[in-house]
Amino acid sequence: MFSKETYIHRRQTLKQKVGSGLILFLGNEDSGMNYRDNVYPFRQDSSFLYYFGLDIPSIHAVIDIDNDQEIIFGNELTIDDIVWTGPKEPLVDKAAKVGVSQVMPLAAIDGFLKVILGKKQQIHFLPPYRAEHTLKLQEWLQVSPAEASQKASVTLIKAIVSMRNYKTAEEIAEMEKAVDTSVDMHLDFMRNARPGMTEKEVAGKLQSIAIGAGGDISYPIILTVNGEILHTHTRDLVMREGQMGLCDAGAETAMRYCGDLTRTIPMGKQFSSLQKDMYQIVLNAQNASVDACKPGILFKDVHKLAATKLLEGLKSLGVVKGDPEEAVENDVHTLFFQCGLGHMIGLDVHDMENLGEQYVGYTDDLVKGTTFGWKSLRLGRALEPGFVVTVEPGLYLIPTLIDRWKAENKLADFVDYNKLEILRDFTGIRIEDNVLITETGNRILGKHLPKEVAEVEALR
Amino acid sequence: MFSKETYIHRRQTLKQKVGSGLILFLGNEDSGMNYRDNVYPFRQDSSFLYYFGLDIPSIHAVIDIDNDQEIIFGNELTIDDIVWTGPKEPLVDKAAKVGVSQVMPLAAIDGFLKVILGKKQQIHFLPPYRAEHTLKLQEWLQVSPAEASQKASVTLIKAIVSMRNYKTAEEIAEMEKAVDTSVDMHLDFMRNARPGMTEKEVAGKLQSIAIGAGGDISYPIILTVNGEILHTHTRDLVMREGQMGLCDAGAETAMRYCGDLTRTIPMGKQFSSLQKDMYQIVLNAQNASVDACKPGILFKDVHKLAATKLLEGLKSLGVVKGDPEEAVENDVHTLFFQCGLGHMIGLDVHDMENLGEQYVGYTDDLVKGTTFGWKSLRLGRALEPGFVVTVEPGLYLIPTLIDRWKAENKLADFVDYNKLEILRDFTGIRIEDNVLITETGNRILGKHLPKEVAEVEALR
Repeated sequence: MFSKETYIHRRQTLKQKVGSGLILFLGNEDSGMNYRDNVYPFRQDSSFLYYFGLDIPSIHAVIDIDNDQEIIFGNELTIDDIVWTGPKEPLVDKAAKVGVSQVMPLAAIDGFLKVILGKKQQIHFLPPYRAEHTLKLQEWLQVSPAEASQKASVTLIKAIVSMRNYKTAEEIAEMEKAVDTSVDMHLDFMRNARPGMTEKEVAGKLQSIAIGAGGDISYPIILTVNGEILHTHTRDLVMREGQMGLCDAGAETAMRYCGDLTRTIPMGKQFSSLQKDMYQIVLNAQNASVDACKPGILFKDVHKLAATKLLEGLKSLGVVKGDPEEAVENDVHTLFFQCGLGHMIGLDVHDMENLGEQYVGYTDDLVKGTTFGWKSLRLGRALEPGFVVTVEPGLYLIPTLIDRWKAENKLADFVDYNKLEILRDFTGIRIEDNVLITETGNRILGKHLPKEVAEVEALR
Repeated sequence: MFSKETYIHRRQTLKQKVGSGLILFLGNEDSGMNYRDNVYPFRQDSSFLYYFGLDIPSIHAVIDIDNDQEIIFGNELTIDDIVWTGPKEPLVDKAAKVGVSQVMPLAAIDGFLKVILGKKQQIHFLPPYRAEHTLKLQEWLQVSPAEASQKASVTLIKAIVSMRNYKTAEEIAEMEKAVDTSVDMHLDFMRNARPGMTEKEVAGKLQSIAIGAGGDISYPIILTVNGEILHTHTRDLVMREGQMGLCDAGAETAMRYCGDLTRTIPMGKQFSSLQKDMYQIVLNAQNASVDACKPGILFKDVHKLAATKLLEGLKSLGVVKGDPEEAVENDVHTLFFQCGLGHMIGLDVHDMENLGEQYVGYTDDLVKGTTFGWKSLRLGRALEPGFVVTVEPGLYLIPTLIDRWKAENKLADFVDYNKLEILRDFTGIRIEDNVLITETGNRILGKHLPKEVAEVEALR
């Protein structure tokens, strides 16, 4: 937890930005897996953590701007509870540590909010992403499930984004820890993953490193020999000599700040000649993109730069033809690089995705694209000091997509579909780092994690 | 997945037991952690798995008994989805593998159920334990969130319990796998946990074993040097020489059958003299309880036997006085053994806890107790062949509880509170196995996991 002053200052700033009304922060509940009491690891809502710091289930908070009042709603343990849980710090003491002096029982929140509703005071709340939130908004605020997202406060969303997007020194220190643990996970993968192991066996090992470091994984680990499957969550395959293993994995710290790294390695000792060529193309694009990150540049343009570098590389292999920049303008890159170059990262791995990508990664004047490829770019706006972003270009040879484009002879001026056949079953490569935008440029967070071909092969 | 015939036969039996109306099975959704798309590991509802076998999110099923119709509602992937997910087996093919020939799009379920409601056909559903279920019951069946549990079908609950409580040979084979992996987890703990390690570091390692075996943990691992804290989920402590480590951990298989084992070990090479005495008391109680498990005996009486054995042991240490059986009648054991001896286990670690413990572990003629200690006994009914139960006696020295009883001088004829002071900070011990009730007696499932003092110390 940060100092009391940090949380007080954040809430003070938020009050000024929102201006008037009452802000309701719904904390998260424990989530049952197959029955109520068999719970998933608890994950607190990130905005709740940001403003109230308390990482415990079943508490909620209000900031009544109009009446300058802050209240945390939650239950103290009874003496009977303590028999089962052991002694715990009272909620009132925990609240004091984040500068909140008023604590009320959970049962009081419904009546409290009904009074606010009766007074026609404006209530700001965030779009719900858990069904428990939806039920509470219905019960407490009479907001129907169908309307809950639309009725969320854009003023509140914009105010929060305008704070959480800029990481402070103490947040950056915590993110360095998250990335350091993420690096440890990847070093274990790069050193110890061997042909004959299953994807899940290796993934389980990496998760244990995140847990041992005091937190957990920040998102489901992608660990696959089919790196071209972008939304893969199956990990049933045995990894084999000659294949590449793609690992996209990150830790979150005990304070819930996230890391998010990707490396692609040869499952044997060395990349094949084609794998090395393709890897170097992605690495060149990644290095160029990281170098380009500095205040003022549109991340959309960094994405374009990465796409251009990827097509330049594919042109050198004869798969792509024509002018790479012109090819990018025609979206040729989306045959190989279907997703975005990166996203904001912080307390969430896709930071504030629950608040809406348009608000976090774009601005009133810069609207997120809607076409294939561009619609998957979560971040487009001009970079500013304090942003932490992922930079993660890749090449993904997706047979379904190749077959479709080839059947349509799509953009055939730029793609040599005959040569492309060589790459049809190539799978995929991604390289990803977490990058802090500084006043003058950028800095890759965390300990060094090898990505040059020679460095990677040296670990195998 | 079991054979198609297994699922067809189960549904056929269920239809006969329920008799009439329509049965709605809500499958589980992916659960977002800190935003919708950052999901916890998917866990299907166990009754859905039992009758429909499909371990994928966002599908639901109905069995229309009156019209002899079975339908699975869910969406097929589009060609656009396949770009991101890779090729997948169509839902219609998956459904065929469990003997269901009719598949309809998810969007059709609301209208389908509205027609059923209009015809006043009875709709049986289970009590919701996820908020997503509550929202669906509200939207599709106009059941208010407050009423959803009461309006659940007791007929359906009883029919399901009367099937799932009796494990078939193919289920037992799967449970043996779950216990075998759980044994591997515990052997790793018993061999490799060392003073100086943190609880979470060891817990993370054990989880990786469960994941590597193809499933995951079946419940949050309890790994603690404070074994007396029954509901502990913090694992922040460094384990130290002289302490005992209690590990309560189990795996679930890829098919979601569960294991649930507990061992308590010295963190150093050997138990202290007092630890050994106390451990032997728990072990004697555990062995006697396992031996007593056979068809016809009330599990409530096995619990009583365990309690008596524990008090006999504590009497030998001078902490308890008087006749142990009389002491148990007076609930003296609840000072040391506050919870139940065990519970049903199967597709859920507390099998069917979502359906109600009264229905699963008791009968119309045998009602669950409500007093301290007895209210925590999840299983009381007479054992029958095919039941799989946990047998997990323990001794838990809870300072808060000891202080309370001592202050009241409660049951002082049976407790020597001065001698008890020696044990005040002893912490806790539990030993747990998974026991199949056979025609003639019982069998402990899975590979041998040491529990004799000498065996345990030999692993340290």
